[in-house]
Amino acid sequence: MGTGVRRRMGVEERRQQLIGVALELFSRRSPDEVSIDEIASAAGISRPLVYHYFPGKLSLYEAALKRASEDLAGRFAEPHEGSLGARLLRVMRRFFDFVDEHGPGFSALMRGGPAVGSSTTNALIDAVRQAAYDQILSHLGVTEASARLELVVRSWISLAESTALIWLDGRRVPRAELELQLVHDFAALTAVSAAYDADMAALLHTMVKDEPADGPFAELVGRLISLAS
Amino acid sequence: MGTGVRRRMGVEERRQQLIGVALELFSRRSPDEVSIDEIASAAGISRPLVYHYFPGKLSLYEAALKRASEDLAGRFAEPHEGSLGARLLRVMRRFFDFVDEHGPGFSALMRGGPAVGSSTTNALIDAVRQAAYDQILSHLGVTEASARLELVVRSWISLAESTALIWLDGRRVPRAELELQLVHDFAALTAVSAAYDADMAALLHTMVKDEPADGPFAELVGRLISLAS
Repeated sequence: MGTGVRRRMGVEERRQQLIGVALELFSRRSPDEVSIDEIASAAGISRPLVYHYFPGKLSLYEAALKRASEDLAGRFAEPHEGSLGARLLRVMRRFFDFVDEHGPGFSALMRGGPAVGSSTTNALIDAVRQAAYDQILSHLGVTEASARLELVVRSWISLAESTALIWLDGRRVPRAELELQLVHDFAALTAVSAAYDADMAALLHTMVKDEPADGPFAELVGRLISLAS
Repeated sequence: MGTGVRRRMGVEERRQQLIGVALELFSRRSPDEVSIDEIASAAGISRPLVYHYFPGKLSLYEAALKRASEDLAGRFAEPHEGSLGARLLRVMRRFFDFVDEHGPGFSALMRGGPAVGSSTTNALIDAVRQAAYDQILSHLGVTEASARLELVVRSWISLAESTALIWLDGRRVPRAELELQLVHDFAALTAVSAAYDADMAALLHTMVKDEPADGPFAELVGRLISLAS
């Protein structure tokens, strides 16, 4: 029954170990397909001992998801240095690293369904989206977003999620291309909004005025101009 | 017990009536908040009689969602006439009509959670997304989409969903502005992809070559050029 192991590990230490083992399994396959028996076996303890720490698979899943979402939110943190395009590109690389590491679990979670959808999991997803949103506003130097800016930023976050999900389904486009594309998409969606709104136009101006000639934004504009001619 | 009513209506007719009543209620408030008692009362029948036609609230919810998703998929159908920008704008108007009519239910469904997430509801959502995807490809005159085109179209569909959800949360931007913005976003995301891929550039060229000077795409380009100068 593994009680020897239980004596060696404290309660919190054992819980953290189980969360780590579960996160690993829930990341690599759809949570539907992962059993408590498998988690117990991977952790080297008995099934009843798993239930001693977590009342059921859902609570263990939620604990693993909490750790993963804190990890992801942490990857959004980026120093306020250099051009905005370069900063966003670095964050996109870390986002795709995360998606790559947690592929099947990320897909199952974001596609929803009974095995992964609960008010707790939805709240964790919303918290990660909010962390992304707050980071972007802080890099734009904005404290109070207008309705139009909020719409551009939040809808772009959802575009990044869906781009990652589509990428995971077959990985038919190189991820580096998509990381750069998402940076460009952010500029493009901002430009579309700026075409009809003076405040967004002013924001776009501050976004691009410090961009270096060899940065991602300048490269896009150059390519679009050559495409149009 | 309402058996007099049951005698007057056939089984299928009664089922269809209940689905209509339920869809109306599930559209106006979150499905969590709608009870079988309320549906029975709105349909003018007893609670046990509702259970005679549907085993529980979930099956009635799924039937209502099936009707709503067929309705929405039907609104994507657009004659292959006139410019692509104008066609897409008409579809966006019908999409926002639908979102407007079903606001709270649409939000609850798309935000997921235990009350609305099941493999059946997810399959219905996916079928609507697929209908939107197929329609767009057919208007682009494409039968086999490349990985990059598929990515642009599917990620734009998710952008349209999230834009509608954000709009519903407070309606702080006029919907007509967002309908046009989404048409522009489609062109912008295609242009970003075209900047790095020859096939996408060729597609963008066929997309815009027949656009009239007063159409939505031409207007966007004009505004962006004046913004850049």
